[in-house]
Amino acid sequence: MKLTKARTRLEKIIPSTLVDELAHGLIEVERILVHEGVTTDVEPLHEATRSVIQAGGKRLRPVLVLLSGFSGEYRREELATAAAAVEMIHTASLVHDDIIDGSETRRGRETLQYERGRGFAIAAGDFMFARAFELLATLKKPAVVERMARAAVDLSLGELDGQAMRRDFVVDRERYFRLIERKTASLFAAACAVGGLIADAPAGAVAALETFGWRIGVAFQIYDDILDIVGDEAVLGKPAGSDLKEGIVTLPYVVAVESGALSYADFAPAARSVGGWIDAVIERVRSSGAIEAATTEARNLVSSALASVAALSNSQLREALESIGAFVVERYA
Amino acid sequence: MKLTKARTRLEKIIPSTLVDELAHGLIEVERILVHEGVTTDVEPLHEATRSVIQAGGKRLRPVLVLLSGFSGEYRREELATAAAAVEMIHTASLVHDDIIDGSETRRGRETLQYERGRGFAIAAGDFMFARAFELLATLKKPAVVERMARAAVDLSLGELDGQAMRRDFVVDRERYFRLIERKTASLFAAACAVGGLIADAPAGAVAALETFGWRIGVAFQIYDDILDIVGDEAVLGKPAGSDLKEGIVTLPYVVAVESGALSYADFAPAARSVGGWIDAVIERVRSSGAIEAATTEARNLVSSALASVAALSNSQLREALESIGAFVVERYA
Repeated sequence: MKLTKARTRLEKIIPSTLVDELAHGLIEVERILVHEGVTTDVEPLHEATRSVIQAGGKRLRPVLVLLSGFSGEYRREELATAAAAVEMIHTASLVHDDIIDGSETRRGRETLQYERGRGFAIAAGDFMFARAFELLATLKKPAVVERMARAAVDLSLGELDGQAMRRDFVVDRERYFRLIERKTASLFAAACAVGGLIADAPAGAVAALETFGWRIGVAFQIYDDILDIVGDEAVLGKPAGSDLKEGIVTLPYVVAVESGALSYADFAPAARSVGGWIDAVIERVRSSGAIEAATTEARNLVSSALASVAALSNSQLREALESIGAFVVERYA
Repeated sequence: MKLTKARTRLEKIIPSTLVDELAHGLIEVERILVHEGVTTDVEPLHEATRSVIQAGGKRLRPVLVLLSGFSGEYRREELATAAAAVEMIHTASLVHDDIIDGSETRRGRETLQYERGRGFAIAAGDFMFARAFELLATLKKPAVVERMARAAVDLSLGELDGQAMRRDFVVDRERYFRLIERKTASLFAAACAVGGLIADAPAGAVAALETFGWRIGVAFQIYDDILDIVGDEAVLGKPAGSDLKEGIVTLPYVVAVESGALSYADFAPAARSVGGWIDAVIERVRSSGAIEAATTEARNLVSSALASVAALSNSQLREALESIGAFVVERYA
């Protein structure tokens, strides 16, 4: 990746004086991701993992690792290694998730399991996952490995929570939050904590960054789930209401049930057998004000995330974290 | 597990003065495997992973970790933690392997994917894998994490090699050995190396143990592959010739081709379409002397494995390693 492209990508997220240093870090992350991160003499594996990683999105998790490194002694190489590992764990979980869902496309491209077969995709996910821990081990910081392994455990538990919810069409605030904490917040939190740990930041700063990551992770996922309802199909790469179609009952639906605009009966098998039921449910969610209420919840989480890092001494870092906080609940997709 | 049972299990493998200490270690391994190793509030996951781990076999890899710990300062708790992690990584790879193969049974029990569904089994494998690295991180030895992660990478590559071979019916010594090195030897080598690292053994001893593990791992897999041809179905839990049926062309077949008793044409699609072709190929392999030749290769590997640890100072350890070496090429199944 060229510097200009890295800067442009970052400036969308972080209008900050740190952009130059971050851009150099992100270039290093991309280099690791497509070279030593996935290099193997098994040629189709190298091609396939590189391709699926390059198709990846905004690199928000790597940016969080790099950025959190400003909480102490900034070490670009080590931070980039950890940032690449976080993205590889994230990608591995998506590859396995696509197998479980039987998804044919992601971000408008064929999924690995659709392109190369299920067995290949299972092994490719395992490969990326194991390589990530091999990279993390080179940092010689046991706390970094432990924090990332915990996040990986949470990803697998979130996967199982999601499977259980899909069967049940659960409408339950507690289960919704547990799911998105495991599926999303844990890795965001680990990304931030790991950046602080690599920088040898004070324990209080590491804890503050971890809390920040956790809260914006939850906010990010809430907003993602809102976009699934209100977003433009062309931008989302999938039709609106996809979550509900798969049985994932997200926060706007939960809020609508809590307010009485919907009831559990609207998700019962009998209701779901009626044609156009998803559009009907979405219409009632929209008109109930539940979208706005869920958006407010996400924004409040961002505020509390920023409160958790208010005591960090580096004002440029605080400013950049504010920009990221704003980004996660304002991005269009 | 009770002490008597642990002793009985070990005495089959290691008729050594170290059995008592190893038995205590193995009890600790079992405790970790069924308690903190797989504890989670996702109840079906806890039950399922505990059950699949308890159905596990000879605990050869954990025993190698514990035993290698006698190369320096023996630290039972740390060794048991690493030994449990090795077994969890092994089990996770089997769970994913069964999904890829579509296997309904393993060791006469239903596979996890058959019992609980594919998505559950993918996530359960990921869970065990991640928990293993969480356990390894608590040892605070980056070299241990790195060595285990490398073995996990090799497992995933071996899985892909196996998939490619299944399609091709490859009869090629080089590819056969690459497959079993990745699928089996790497984790055996890591188990031995990790035991030495935890004991803070001298670098030379760790390297010797790693070489020992690698070579007996190769020998173990060769012997396993021989048993698939000559073994009793009741003991194997699967019919003889299962490997060939799945397209895995193991060492006895390779040797038979090298000696001219078989030819590549005997594995071609046209040959495979003839009823009873597997029995016919096996009969020719048996009468060619290839079974004996492959057995000799395995035994020679055990000899060279023992040569690699001949300089270890602990004579009890050397004696126990000799017993393990004998076991891997003499066991019935």
